[in-house]
Amino acid sequence: MTDRATNAEVETRVRSSFDRQAFMRTVGAHLVSIAPGEVVIEWPFRSDLTQQHGFLHAGVVAAVADSACGYAALSLMPARVAVLSVEFKVNLMKPAAGERFRAIGKVVRAGRTLTVCAAEVQAHVGGKETTIAVMQGTMMAVRESALVD
Amino acid sequence: MTDRATNAEVETRVRSSFDRQAFMRTVGAHLVSIAPGEVVIEWPFRSDLTQQHGFLHAGVVAAVADSACGYAALSLMPARVAVLSVEFKVNLMKPAAGERFRAIGKVVRAGRTLTVCAAEVQAHVGGKETTIAVMQGTMMAVRESALVD
Amino acid sequence: MTDRATNAEVETRVRSSFDRQAFMRTVGAHLVSIAPGEVVIEWPFRSDLTQQHGFLHAGVVAAVADSACGYAALSLMPARVAVLSVEFKVNLMKPAAGERFRAIGKVVRAGRTLTVCAAEVQAHVGGKETTIAVMQGTMMAVRESALVD
Amino acid sequence: MTDRATNAEVETRVRSSFDRQAFMRTVGAHLVSIAPGEVVIEWPFRSDLTQQHGFLHAGVVAAVADSACGYAALSLMPARVAVLSVEFKVNLMKPAAGERFRAIGKVVRAGRTLTVCAAEVQAHVGGKETTIAVMQGTMMAVRESALVD
Repeated sequence: MTDRATNAEVETRVRSSFDRQAFMRTVGAHLVSIAPGEVVIEWPFRSDLTQQHGFLHAGVVAAVADSACGYAALSLMPARVAVLSVEFKVNLMKPAAGERFRAIGKVVRAGRTLTVCAAEVQAHVGGKETTIAVMQGTMMAVRESALVD
Repeated sequence: MTDRATNAEVETRVRSSFDRQAFMRTVGAHLVSIAPGEVVIEWPFRSDLTQQHGFLHAGVVAAVADSACGYAALSLMPARVAVLSVEFKVNLMKPAAGERFRAIGKVVRAGRTLTVCAAEVQAHVGGKETTIAVMQGTMMAVRESALVD
Repeated sequence: MTDRATNAEVETRVRSSFDRQAFMRTVGAHLVSIAPGEVVIEWPFRSDLTQQHGFLHAGVVAAVADSACGYAALSLMPARVAVLSVEFKVNLMKPAAGERFRAIGKVVRAGRTLTVCAAEVQAHVGGKETTIAVMQGTMMAVRESALVD
Repeated sequence: MTDRATNAEVETRVRSSFDRQAFMRTVGAHLVSIAPGEVVIEWPFRSDLTQQHGFLHAGVVAAVADSACGYAALSLMPARVAVLSVEFKVNLMKPAAGERFRAIGKVVRAGRTLTVCAAEVQAHVGGKETTIAVMQGTMMAVRESALVD
């Protein structure tokens, strides 16, 4: 990726890295859209992803939101770096009940090393969507390493 | 559970709720120890839990730390309430590489409604352990609801 | 305040409580606008509010953002409760340099007991504004107490 | 500071930077102890630091905890870098009532660029101390800049 990375190059880069996230496959998540600074991921409810009351486990909500944030950050990073999560904070506002879920990750500020992101997670039931969680976190562009995304 | 809940009662209560967390089974996690205010959970590395570089996904680290915090909180809660995660924040200090992982959740302060918890996540390789993540979060005792833990 | 609290009642309630926050006076902060679910506070740069490099101390940034979140939350709370901060997380994206600063606090979700809020803090220099920090936090409606806001 | 920085050099470095934090003077805070990886700061209750119910404002609690974390981080950083706060999260567990307050900041993990810290804030009344808040945050060693601590 260079400063002139086209949207198609950004999409290829993000999709290629996402496809290597085995855990997103385990969760059944897929990329819905990729734009510079914004990535959307969806996944269906599945009973093997639940906590003790039958809602989606908070960790699953956090995991997909983290991936959405990480790839939103990567979409603006220069070539030959890798993205790693530094930290994130999630507020779980409603029980994660629904038929399918959507995490929308956005870059709030892209820096040379650190990128601050925000994500919103929605539950979809019928035609209705509800915001169930919000995340605020920091992603890092890792250089001088064997890792590349 | 009452103020006089025995350690055995606490253990039964936590174990029974944990066993209903389908996602902990999906991750391969099991309870190692339960004491009032402290719960330890372990799980093995598995390639279907990884992010793009082959490390454990940050969301899996967060998920088990969240369960350890939640059950540490539940261990001190009165009978006939349910525990839900309000929010948590995790700092990922090292790539999650290892053979197995351990999340140690502790109560920092137990209130009537809100309980503040902290967790440490360790990676184990051979006989060596490394702290890879720390969590600080809030759990809630939910009353007046159909939910019970 | 009732469900039918007028905007004028909301404004009176928030302004009256804000005026009792001695620390906001110490910082030189004042309310710019109050609407149901959104409160804006401004304050000027002052050298006695700085950290070691001459930027505003991160704690001052956090303090005003916290007040903006707390009063955004209070603006939607029923009568005869008090608002307290449960927790907040702030990402400091740029050094806090500027002539004056503005914190915009908004309610993300208002619940019976807990309200999730977000704030943005801007630095203003000349006619130019820059977002220097973002906050995500939880406010609580305290009942059954001597405290009222 | 080099890898062989003596405790006396660490103390001089931290004290010199702390003395330039005008806001710590405004709050009335002073350094109680400095050791590699741990810094303790105290300050007295003052009515001009309060929120609307007469407790210490959460932002003051966060500000001193942030300084304690930042200087704990700086105490382990190499020479010719400056320390800046990247982010922090604070849980306010009890109303900040007391005669004086103490923030204890500790390094959880020191990295080349990022250092993860934790702080505890205590209220002291008579001979009794109570933990009123905990912080988890990230500090950054800033290189290639005009700033030095």
